[in-house]
This record gives sequence, structure tokens and C-alpha cells, in this order.
Amino acid sequence: MKAARLYDYDPEMNVQLKIEEVPAPTINGPDEVIVKVGAAGLCRTDLHIIEGVWKEVMDADGALLPYVMGHENAGWVEDVGSNVTSVKPGDAVICHPHRSCGICLNCRYGHDMYCDHGLFPGLGLDGGFAEYFITNESSVIKLNTNITPLEVAPMADAGITAYRAAKKAAGLVHPGSYVTVLGVGGLGHIAIQCLKNLCGARVIAIDREPGAQALAKDLGADLVLDGGSDLIEQVKEATGGGSDVVIDFVGELGVENICWKLLRQGGELIVVGYGGTIEVPTLELVINEIKIGGSLVGDYTELVELMELNADGLVKMHYTEYTLDDINTSIDDFKNRRFTGRGVIVP
Amino acid sequence: MKAARLYDYDPEMNVQLKIEEVPAPTINGPDEVIVKVGAAGLCRTDLHIIEGVWKEVMDADGALLPYVMGHENAGWVEDVGSNVTSVKPGDAVICHPHRSCGICLNCRYGHDMYCDHGLFPGLGLDGGFAEYFITNESSVIKLNTNITPLEVAPMADAGITAYRAAKKAAGLVHPGSYVTVLGVGGLGHIAIQCLKNLCGARVIAIDREPGAQALAKDLGADLVLDGGSDLIEQVKEATGGGSDVVIDFVGELGVENICWKLLRQGGELIVVGYGGTIEVPTLELVINEIKIGGSLVGDYTELVELMELNADGLVKMHYTEYTLDDINTSIDDFKNRRFTGRGVIVP
Amino acid sequence: MKAARLYDYDPEMNVQLKIEEVPAPTINGPDEVIVKVGAAGLCRTDLHIIEGVWKEVMDADGALLPYVMGHENAGWVEDVGSNVTSVKPGDAVICHPHRSCGICLNCRYGHDMYCDHGLFPGLGLDGGFAEYFITNESSVIKLNTNITPLEVAPMADAGITAYRAAKKAAGLVHPGSYVTVLGVGGLGHIAIQCLKNLCGARVIAIDREPGAQALAKDLGADLVLDGGSDLIEQVKEATGGGSDVVIDFVGELGVENICWKLLRQGGELIVVGYGGTIEVPTLELVINEIKIGGSLVGDYTELVELMELNADGLVKMHYTEYTLDDINTSIDDFKNRRFTGRGVIVP
Amino acid sequence: MKAARLYDYDPEMNVQLKIEEVPAPTINGPDEVIVKVGAAGLCRTDLHIIEGVWKEVMDADGALLPYVMGHENAGWVEDVGSNVTSVKPGDAVICHPHRSCGICLNCRYGHDMYCDHGLFPGLGLDGGFAEYFITNESSVIKLNTNITPLEVAPMADAGITAYRAAKKAAGLVHPGSYVTVLGVGGLGHIAIQCLKNLCGARVIAIDREPGAQALAKDLGADLVLDGGSDLIEQVKEATGGGSDVVIDFVGELGVENICWKLLRQGGELIVVGYGGTIEVPTLELVINEIKIGGSLVGDYTELVELMELNADGLVKMHYTEYTLDDINTSIDDFKNRRFTGRGVIVP
Repeated sequence: MKAARLYDYDPEMNVQLKIEEVPAPTINGPDEVIVKVGAAGLCRTDLHIIEGVWKEVMDADGALLPYVMGHENAGWVEDVGSNVTSVKPGDAVICHPHRSCGICLNCRYGHDMYCDHGLFPGLGLDGGFAEYFITNESSVIKLNTNITPLEVAPMADAGITAYRAAKKAAGLVHPGSYVTVLGVGGLGHIAIQCLKNLCGARVIAIDREPGAQALAKDLGADLVLDGGSDLIEQVKEATGGGSDVVIDFVGELGVENICWKLLRQGGELIVVGYGGTIEVPTLELVINEIKIGGSLVGDYTELVELMELNADGLVKMHYTEYTLDDINTSIDDFKNRRFTGRGVIVP
Repeated sequence: MKAARLYDYDPEMNVQLKIEEVPAPTINGPDEVIVKVGAAGLCRTDLHIIEGVWKEVMDADGALLPYVMGHENAGWVEDVGSNVTSVKPGDAVICHPHRSCGICLNCRYGHDMYCDHGLFPGLGLDGGFAEYFITNESSVIKLNTNITPLEVAPMADAGITAYRAAKKAAGLVHPGSYVTVLGVGGLGHIAIQCLKNLCGARVIAIDREPGAQALAKDLGADLVLDGGSDLIEQVKEATGGGSDVVIDFVGELGVENICWKLLRQGGELIVVGYGGTIEVPTLELVINEIKIGGSLVGDYTELVELMELNADGLVKMHYTEYTLDDINTSIDDFKNRRFTGRGVIVP
Repeated sequence: MKAARLYDYDPEMNVQLKIEEVPAPTINGPDEVIVKVGAAGLCRTDLHIIEGVWKEVMDADGALLPYVMGHENAGWVEDVGSNVTSVKPGDAVICHPHRSCGICLNCRYGHDMYCDHGLFPGLGLDGGFAEYFITNESSVIKLNTNITPLEVAPMADAGITAYRAAKKAAGLVHPGSYVTVLGVGGLGHIAIQCLKNLCGARVIAIDREPGAQALAKDLGADLVLDGGSDLIEQVKEATGGGSDVVIDFVGELGVENICWKLLRQGGELIVVGYGGTIEVPTLELVINEIKIGGSLVGDYTELVELMELNADGLVKMHYTEYTLDDINTSIDDFKNRRFTGRGVIVP
Repeated sequence: MKAARLYDYDPEMNVQLKIEEVPAPTINGPDEVIVKVGAAGLCRTDLHIIEGVWKEVMDADGALLPYVMGHENAGWVEDVGSNVTSVKPGDAVICHPHRSCGICLNCRYGHDMYCDHGLFPGLGLDGGFAEYFITNESSVIKLNTNITPLEVAPMADAGITAYRAAKKAAGLVHPGSYVTVLGVGGLGHIAIQCLKNLCGARVIAIDREPGAQALAKDLGADLVLDGGSDLIEQVKEATGGGSDVVIDFVGELGVENICWKLLRQGGELIVVGYGGTIEVPTLELVINEIKIGGSLVGDYTELVELMELNADGLVKMHYTEYTLDDINTSIDDFKNRRFTGRGVIVP
């Protein structure tokens, strides 16, 4: 089959993925599923992998290369192991990025992402920038009628990460509350849609880019700000004292230490983006009784729920399509922000 | 001042309220508030009061008559007691129907409706079918800018009863779940709007009246049914096994024993309407692990939240306006279902 | 292997299980686990099975007989399928009664008991009144060090049913609240212990038997009542208006319609026992805003949690031991209440 | 009346409170309550007030001095305003430290400590190191029969701060989970007792003092550690990967940046002590999905609940008694850690 493989890490990103013929995967275990890739989303994590940021974690001994990235996958079931009963060849599916074991206690509590034995195709083993890839029954979700893999592939990772943060926020607010979203990119634009459908609170969206601001407005944000130097005062005034919840999709460049200052007493900051370091006096935490917490990729059931919102037409992914042969162009365009929403690779 | 007073209970309802001059209320306690009535909603409970249904509870010794009904009140503050600081004469307000004490433990837990010393103007003491009525500081909520008493008066009781039930339902579901609403009248049409704004679940609305069905569709119900004899099968099929939550605004005429049969395993029935008796085998409760619970008028904070949704244009009351002089006509029209939504009396 | 098999249903229970040699089970699927039975609890459901109460549900065509009952099993792993990694031969385990699939959406939400493809060894397929029985990897939990199968077997069903109800109750109360437990038998005595460890509320235990009353007191019940005719008044007075939660382990004989009258406003009845029919006016549900819900066998994670309480010495099962050869005696003793706590069969 | 008044702030604390005659307070408003002080707890905050730490917040213009500290008060009602109905002269009461308004939206949601118009007797206005002090009806709680003011006074602030943190922790765990408490002083020793009564999780207590370690063990801590240099490894090993919840009663001296490293994936740090600054990389927050939040003094209902636990004999305050005349000795002993538990002043 055709696949795009990475042959080297390079902090400068002066490398190209090589499009080449490789052996297609085959079923080895009773719970495995081979998926014919319909579309695979391109994620910022893919850029970080090329830069070598994840080398220490997923390829410490350097034995992984060459390998196939791509962890936001949707397509059609091609083959299944002997114990698989919930899907059959031909079924259109989206794949939760984590192949969880389903047996460990974390899995039993529904925390797929904390699985003691999880695998993450596209990070540390071959992923979906290819014609086929292999996962297991625990990760696949049948698509609702009339939904195509191309429309939803990036929901598998970008989508549920935004959904999980939005769902946490929705559980903390009521009509009259404010949720502030920093960063209206691939994740932020999904979070806004989710928030408007999961709770009655008002949404404030903040982004420096006029295009992102316009998108936020289109998607129903109640107030859109450009994140200027008086951001804290603007939010305090608009909200009458501070936002009940803030979701930070940036997490670096100083944004991480502005976010918790946007909160009202009793408020909560949900951190999704990363890179920076939060510095907060314990006195501020206590007096204002604020909370700061990270948020990971969503669980399997959260992807199921997001696909239901999508099937109902309530949450949609904005994307730009590339062929697998053009994957190096898509990476270049992504680095240089030549598209909005998400880039999607079609084999 | 002018007021409409009830002089007799009559199960046949062959009585008229008498429009007459009575002394206006005056401030007696430091926390009291006199409201110049802007509008007062007409509630089915008012009909029941006239019929004598509530006599035993609120007027056992018959000493209450003649008295002024009206417990869904909004208007402008006219005068305040010496300890009142949160509102001042001229402020436009809506009044939570329960004058709670704010001191008992139920109040401290936020359960205004369970207040150990609560009073309910319009039920047992004079209410808002008049030019002025008296309440206390604990019950008033300032209206958002540009909102008039007329637009929102029935939110004070009908609105928050529906909101409370919808909020409970929203806390039990997720995208892909179903909430079924039986009865799309004065309460049901508010509940549908609340549900569509508080959660991502699908809403099934059931009513026998074509007008109510059309309204449900307009307000965003995902599926509208007419409640025919095969209702249980219809709901089971539409939902793939049963509704996650059912809200029963009827509660009598046999509907109460259909509702719990619409639930899926683990589902919950929220009962708002009353009159009938639920009969359910404990075996059904256990095997299906279903829950059946009543729901009362909402608390003060729930009225605050509903007013926020209203201010954002997300939930609106449908109403028909009558003058205080025409209150007997409005009662007659209500009995004979000559208007949809809610009847509202303007002094 | 040796097994006790049922050859006939009899409402009068004039049948004996036959102790005989049958083929031992063998591994057929990659996720299966064969357990050498260490102990198997005797449940009231076993009596109902013999009486034919469950025939329609689990053996409609009558093809099941002869078969081996026993659904409260603990022992040691004897053999495992090719895909099993979490346990190995020799491990001491307790078995959740439901062999859940781990793949359906109910399982993914952690609702093992709602599994779309679940099997229940001992109800509809061979169970643990034998030397060996077969289950799957999803149902087994390794025992904590120093815990023997004999001490915990009935935790597998009786224990988690009581734990689940107690955990629900604990989530509804706070210090100063009251939880009332009706029936201090095999389930009730576990519930009392769980409640005293899961929340700071007071526990009222009700049972007609002096032995059960004494046990309740020993286990820490704050008040023990004998369920006389003035029960409602007694509970209302002791609690200052009604119990916050009531757990009904009886569910029949009229108890089911006393229970909801013990609740205070906003209270909740958790029904575990069954047989009777609850009749409750919707007006009572609404005015008192009470809730009535069934409670099923606990989920896998609940059995894990209960085993942790047991390992910490906080919750213990009272039991009487019988050999497999004496199983008919144990059934007879159970029918005639000749032991307290739970009967346990040891092969 | 006799009162102990502060005449100067001094970072070196070389000042003495002056015991002198001052006018007793009198009722000025309809909701006020005058309490004859039975006992008043001495809090570390009192030391900080003397040092001038709170000057900027509560006495910016320096006009407050001389004034009476003491915000952990219990005693007997002496006089009440015209609108007060829930207590009468002679009633034994404990006083929530915040005189909340009961009217603002924060109060209505039950967040007394966020009250828009709250007063804090002892911080910024005269408190309880005197024979009488003044508060309002919203802050008083009648003591259970047989409970004396002396036994419970420090519950009013130290107690509910610990209770609130413990209650938050209890809501996050289940049997088998671990809650780690850092600092077994006036607050920590209450938190351990609360945790053992509010949930079935295991408690790890950490303190450098052998006396505190012994107390922790007495109060039921499952594991007691001395906080040595390998603390993180010790906790990770004892808990099998990290503590589910950590409560930090220190909040400074480097402890604040050890605490979040004790958490397992999905864990939560509750910060009560303050002084230091937390520095945490957003990457750590996200990958481990941990949460860090401050916790304030508990609300009124939390003091009610704590008093119920106390009445049931489940949570007790360890204290050392001083007369008002000896208050300067008690302050000196506190500074030099000459007593364990809490110091209590009796007029």
C-alpha cells in the first residue's frame, strides 16, 4: 500500500515525508481491526513529532524510523480479528486515537486515555497517513448514516479534545455565567460550537486573527475580543467581575499566566494548550478560590457524543483537503498558516 | 387601589371576581417591598383556587375571603422597608412567588420552596391581580435592561417550574440522549426552549393538539408525536429502546402510567403535572433501574437563570394580554382554551 | 468435576439438587477464564429459580435443564484464553456476576449491568455450585493479599447490590441527614456498614427480627426500630420531618408503600427488594418533590470498591459455610431462616 | 465590658494586646445579634494581623486601631434586633465568621464567603476577644444539646476551613483511593477526622513533628509519613502511582511545589495554606490532567454539617484554654508552638 513515512527528526523541519509502497498491515490478534483510511487529520502534534519533540517519549532508542504518522483517522473497516463482533468489513468508522485495553481499572472507569496498556497509532506505531492502518475494536465507532470519513476525521483527536474541555466547562456554569475561550483555531472553533449546544452560558472568544474572530462570531460567540493589552480589564468588565470558566487553547507565550487572572471568585481555568509555565501565588488560589486544571484528549464515549452532535448538524469541522501525495505541501501550508480550520489528508 | 377579589369558592366556577377599590398595602416590616404590578400571569392553580381545591390547605377556617389571587407577578418597586438595600423605588422587577425567610436551613441550602416560614402571595394572602401587592426583598429580581414586566410575568411561576424540570433533565443526559416532553402548553413550551439551550440531547414533544405540535416544532423539538395509542412503541423505536428522560406536564388521565414505560434502562421520569396516581411494580423499578420523581416550582436562583436566558433571547413566553377589568373574561377563555401560551393580566 | 444440578422447577420447592459428576468446562474463546470455585454464595434468587419464577426469562423453551446455579463466585484462576493478560492460573479472584462484553456503549459508559450482550453464569448458563465454572476476563477481580474466596464470595452479588444502593444514598446526604434502611438481612447488613463508611449521615435500621436489630446496632446503626405500626410517626419524629433517603430491601408485603411516606421533602427512596407494587399520587410526588428509583446489582468498579473496603476491614460479610454435598441442606436452612447473614457453599 | 485590643501593628510582634474596659456593643439594625462570648479561638491569622500583613486590606487608612480581634466565636445570645426570629437571648450559638447579607446572588447560591456585602468581625471590625461582640442572624447556629461554646469555638473558622477541603476531597474519591494531607496542625487534624467520616478512601498524613504524627495515627490516618526528602517516591509507591487528592495545609516553604507532584493522573490538589508560589508547566497539567485549586473558609451550611459531626462525637477539636487576661501568653505560646491543636480564649 501507499504510505507517507518519516525518515528523520529535524528541529528545523527541513525534512520531507517519503511517499512509498510498504506492506499493508494484517490482523494478528483477535480484537484487531484494519481500517482502509478515508481521511486523516493533520495535527500540530505531527509537526512536533517531525521536530523531534516527542522522540524521547516514543522513540528513545531511535528504532522507530521510518514510520507512518497520522492519529486522526476515519475510514472503512477492511478486516477484523476473530473476536470482533461490533463492526464488520465495509462499515464506515471513526477511530478514537487510543487503542485502550478495556480491562485495566482505568478503562473500567471509562478513562480510556489513562489506560495502563494503551497504544496510540501515529505516535510510536504506524498511523493513518497511508491507505490502511491497524487499530482494535475498542477504538472504532460506526459513523451515523450519511456521514463520510472526510467530514469528521479530525474529530478523532482535535474534536474530542475541544469537546472534553467544553463539556467540563458546561458542567460548571448556568445561564448568566461566562465561558471564555482563548484561541479560535482547530480546537477553539469546535469548543465554541460545543459550548453553545451544551449549556446556556455566554461565550467570550479571544483571538488575535481577524479571520478567527469572524469565525467565532459566525459560530455564535456572544462577545469576541482581540486579546489586546487590556484584556483582563475588558473581560472583568464584560463579565461583571470575571469569567466563570476560561479555556486556554494556547498555554504558552504568556497567555497561560493571563488566563487565571480572567477568572471570577470560584472560577476554573481549563488548560488545553501547552508549552509555558503557570506561576500562581497560593494566596491568589485561596482568596479567590480558583482552580486550574489540565485537560487531555477526550475518552471514547466523548467521541461518540461529539459524533452525535455532528450527526445532528450542531458541530462541524472546518477543513482543507489534501491528497496523500501532497502531504508535504499540507505540512508546509500548516506551518505557514495558509489554511483555516484543519488540514485533512485523503489517500 | 383597584383589585380583583374572590368572594366565594365554587366547584362549578360559576363565580366572578369582583373588581373593586381596596386599601393599597403598606410597609410593615424592614424587609418588605411593595410592587406596583406591571403584569400578572393567570395560572391553572388560580382556577383550582376558585373551584375550592386549595381551600383546605390555605383557608381551612374560611376567613381568607375576600382575597386577591395572582402569584406570577412582575412590575416596579413602589416602596421598601428600612432594611432593604438591593432594590429601590422605580426598579423593574419580577417576583419569585415564594416569600422565603432566608434564614432557615432549607433557605440556606438554596431550597427556597422548602422554606420553613415561606409565604406565597396569591395563595393564602393577597397577590398580584391588583394595582399593588406586597412581598419581601428575598423574592425580587431586577429585570435586565429592556425587559418589560409584561413580557416575563408568567416566568415567575410557570416559567421556573418548566425551567427546573428542564435543568434536572439536562443534568441527566448527553448528546445522543433523548428527553421526551409530554404536554406542550404554558409550561411545556418553555421546557422545550430550555432543553434546547441547556444540553445537546434530542427533544421529543408529545401533544394531541395540532397547534401545540406546530409550536413544538417551531421551538426546535427534534421529533413531534401526537400521543396516539401506539405511543410507547413509537418512542421506543425513535429512541432505540426508550427515552433517557421523560418530563410529564400532564400527570393525570392515564398519562402518568404511560410515562414511565417510555424510559430506557437507567432512565428517569420527572413529574410536574398532577392529579393521577402512579402504579409501578417494584420489579419494573429494579430491573430497569428507572427513577420517578416529582418536580416543584423552581428556586430563586432558577428564576434568575431563566431571566438570563430570556434576556439573551433564548427563551420566550407566549402570552395573551387582558386588562384587570377583563379578568373574568380571561378566566373564561382559559377554561375554554381560547388562547395558547399564557394569559397575562395588566392592571 | 462435581456439580450440583437442578433438574426441575417446582413452585413448592420439593426438589433437590443432584450432586453428580459432569464434564469440567474448557476454554473456547480468547477472553475466557476458568475459575476453580473456592466458594459460592446462596442467594434468594436461587430459591426463585427453583420455584420457576425466572423460567420465562432464562429458560422459556425449557432446554436449559439440567443446569448448575450459583452466581456469587470466588476462587482461583485455573485456565485462561489466549488474549487474557490481567490474570493467570493460580490468582485468587472474585467474579462479577455479569460477563459483560466491554465493547457496547453501555459497557463503555461503565454500566456493566446494562451490557447489550451480557451473560450471567448461574442464571441461564452454568454457574458456581461446582468445582469449576467459566466466565471471562471482564468479570474477574484479583483478591487483595490475605483475602480468601470464602470470606468474600457473596460480595459478588449481594454485596455489590447493597453497596450500589448505599453509594447512591451517600451521594445524596451530608452530616445531619438520615438514611433509613428497611431490612437488615444479607444485603441490609452490608448496606449499613457501607453507609457508615461512605458518608457522615445518620443511619436508621428497621427490622422485625431481634437478631437483625442487634446486628444493626453492632454494625453502627444510629437508631434501630422494629417496624411497628407507628413506623411513619417514629421516623418523622426521630428525623425531624422525614428521612433524606430510604433504602428498601424488602419491596413487598406493603413495605413498598410505607417507604416513600418516610421521606422528607426532597427525599429519595431507593428500591432494591421487589415483589409489590408502588402506588403514589402524582400530587404527593410533586408537592413533596420526592423521588423513587430502583437499584440493580452493582457494576464491576463497584465490586472493586467494595473489595477495597473489605480489605481495609471496614465491611465484612456474615456467613454460614456448607459443603457442596450439603447444598440441599443449606437451601432448606435458608428457606427456614436457620442462619443469619449469607449461606456459602464450598466445593 | 472587658476586651483585648490591638494598638499597633508590628512585624516583629513585640506588641501586647491591652486588656481594658470598653463600651459593650448595642443593637443597631433589625437583623443584628449580640453574643456574650463563651470562647474565641486564636488563629494564625491573628498573628498575621498583629504583624501588619492584613493592614493594607482591612485598615489601609490606619483608622481601625485600637480594635478587638477574634473571629472564631461561640457563646450565648445576649440581645437581638427586631427582625430576628431564629434565636433568642440565652441560646447557645456558634458564629460563622462572615456576616453575609443573604440577599446578593452569591448568598442565594449558598456561597456565603463570596457575599458582595459581607463583614468579618475580628478582621476589620471588632471581634470576639471580649465579653460581647456583635454579628447578625445570618451567621449564628444554635448549638446541639450538651455542646458548650468552649468545645467548639475554633470550629467557626479553623474547623470549617478543614471541613470544606475534606468535603471537596471526599467528592472526588471512592474506596481504594488515597487522600494525602500535608500538615497535621489545627486544621489538618480536623481534616483527617472529617475524611474518615465522609468517604471510604485511605488517608495519608504527613508532618515533620512526632507529636503531630502520633495524633494523625490516633485519629485514624491509614499511613503517616514524616515528609522526608524522598516524600514523592514514598507516596507514589504507597499509592501505586500517586494520590488521588492532596490537601496542602502548608502552602509555602517549598511544600506547594511538592504537592502537585504527589498526584496520580487525573488527581487534584486542594490548597489551603498560603505564602508560596506554585510553578507548574502547562505540559504537566495537560499530560497528567491534574487540577490545582484553592479552598477558602467554609460556608454557613458547612459549619452546620460540621457541628452535626461534632454532636455525633465523630469530629473533635483539640484545644488549650486561656483566660482573656492571659491572651498575650496564649499568643506567645502559639508563636513558639507550646501547645498542640488550637488555643482558645475564655473571657
